[in-house]
Amino acid sequence: MSNWAPRDPNFEQRVRDSYARQAAMVFLGATMARVVPGEVVLELPFRREITQQHGFVHAGVGTSVMDSACGYAALTLMDRGTGVLSVEFKVNLLAPAQGQLFRAIGKVVRSGRTLVVTTAELRAFATPQERSDGALVAMMTATIMTVRDRPDLLD
Amino acid sequence: MSNWAPRDPNFEQRVRDSYARQAAMVFLGATMARVVPGEVVLELPFRREITQQHGFVHAGVGTSVMDSACGYAALTLMDRGTGVLSVEFKVNLLAPAQGQLFRAIGKVVRSGRTLVVTTAELRAFATPQERSDGALVAMMTATIMTVRDRPDLLD
Amino acid sequence: MSNWAPRDPNFEQRVRDSYARQAAMVFLGATMARVVPGEVVLELPFRREITQQHGFVHAGVGTSVMDSACGYAALTLMDRGTGVLSVEFKVNLLAPAQGQLFRAIGKVVRSGRTLVVTTAELRAFATPQERSDGALVAMMTATIMTVRDRPDLLD
Amino acid sequence: MSNWAPRDPNFEQRVRDSYARQAAMVFLGATMARVVPGEVVLELPFRREITQQHGFVHAGVGTSVMDSACGYAALTLMDRGTGVLSVEFKVNLLAPAQGQLFRAIGKVVRSGRTLVVTTAELRAFATPQERSDGALVAMMTATIMTVRDRPDLLD
Repeated sequence: MSNWAPRDPNFEQRVRDSYARQAAMVFLGATMARVVPGEVVLELPFRREITQQHGFVHAGVGTSVMDSACGYAALTLMDRGTGVLSVEFKVNLLAPAQGQLFRAIGKVVRSGRTLVVTTAELRAFATPQERSDGALVAMMTATIMTVRDRPDLLD
Repeated sequence: MSNWAPRDPNFEQRVRDSYARQAAMVFLGATMARVVPGEVVLELPFRREITQQHGFVHAGVGTSVMDSACGYAALTLMDRGTGVLSVEFKVNLLAPAQGQLFRAIGKVVRSGRTLVVTTAELRAFATPQERSDGALVAMMTATIMTVRDRPDLLD
Repeated sequence: MSNWAPRDPNFEQRVRDSYARQAAMVFLGATMARVVPGEVVLELPFRREITQQHGFVHAGVGTSVMDSACGYAALTLMDRGTGVLSVEFKVNLLAPAQGQLFRAIGKVVRSGRTLVVTTAELRAFATPQERSDGALVAMMTATIMTVRDRPDLLD
Repeated sequence: MSNWAPRDPNFEQRVRDSYARQAAMVFLGATMARVVPGEVVLELPFRREITQQHGFVHAGVGTSVMDSACGYAALTLMDRGTGVLSVEFKVNLLAPAQGQLFRAIGKVVRSGRTLVVTTAELRAFATPQERSDGALVAMMTATIMTVRDRPDLLD
């Protein structure tokens, strides 16, 4: 699941530049921690502003970072001159999202010409320094579309 | 699909009080526009802070308001002394989320003792005054769990 | 949701001809009851061979007829010279599938150039003559792809 | 993902006995190849009766064996006196299901008191003797419910 060959040698810069334009990620406080062919990791520190009524991180916020991780994992493998669009995703919430840091790990499962199937895990860490794999709090399967010939949707 | 009988006569206040504790909804700028048995509508005004790289509202943000609409639609039908937890959801993104106002309409499809199945639509409006049904930009199916005997998860 | 205009005037014959080649539907005993633009209804009589361990119709069998109903609902709106392929689907099982007859009603929600989003309901009837809407036992959301320039995947 | 401790020492016999009552699996020709705590593998030989219009195995048939693999993987970890019910599942179809043999590998991801989250892969093999991991043709995420105090739904 890790021997993906990028078609655009400049994929990392392109992914990071596009990510910097995702105002919602800046607003939520998420940063891009890792960009390799077929995989992107985002980090989201806990803050009270992103919680639901029981004090856990809101499922929709966890979904936001998993969706961005999946979309950019797909973009690492795309040709120049394309853009990325989420078609659909499914999320299972496995445990309350509590911790000081969350990591959304998005990976490409299948890279087709038009559609890219990806999965993501959301993992919680008691402290930012924690060395473990974290606790699995949610998982996503997402279908991402490659958009061609649409200069307004370029990434 | 609309003849639901609430078990808690105080359901509206309970839903509104719990919603007021969802810090993430305040942070995103969403407000609760409608609470009736089996249905909740949330409104989300456009702001640049919630967009993705092409200027549309981020899919995860749209998902956040749909998830809250589904969860609270489920809560309108629950007994006192319970709490609500999202188990899983599936989102299809049908069109770019562009507009000045978005409405997430969450409805109960089936209300079981433990699990409640709900659906939501996200609709976009060119202006807040628009009188139409809006444009359907996303749809969700969500499974919500009734939590009992957990004072820490009370709604 | 019902004013769809077919691009191929011969859509009904094309759908019925393709359906007749779905050996799995013949094997399960499902027949095509209705074909209109954007909607297809399949009927599945109960038989012991399609049950699970508690005597209800197996969730996968119900899914099979819903998937075919969705795919052919999508095909009613497609150009000649194309084919139809299921990309993904999500099923919620709302009640045990018990009855003498089941109807899978597939409908198009959004028809794009490449992807068609559809929904299906599986409804159970105590007798084949029953005049009600039946009991809702399952629901599906399915994404269907339009396949072009693939003579081997023509419908 | 493999250190699950079964609560019922007799789990394998119980799973196999319940599976033998799934008439639909017999009808489709699927057999149970492996039962260990938290994992079940089913095998489905190709036959023309289970195909769709292009000659591939019907997505609903592949879903049927993945759903049974997930449900029985969940059952391996349940107490005696319980039963298993599929709540919902999501399937992504990654490649045409062609081959002489298919394996559905169902695994438990999270085992809660009420809900069990499982995943399945459907893998295709050119010949029954093939020693490879096969080609990944579909993947499922399924939520399974533990049913208690329902003698009619016992497994």
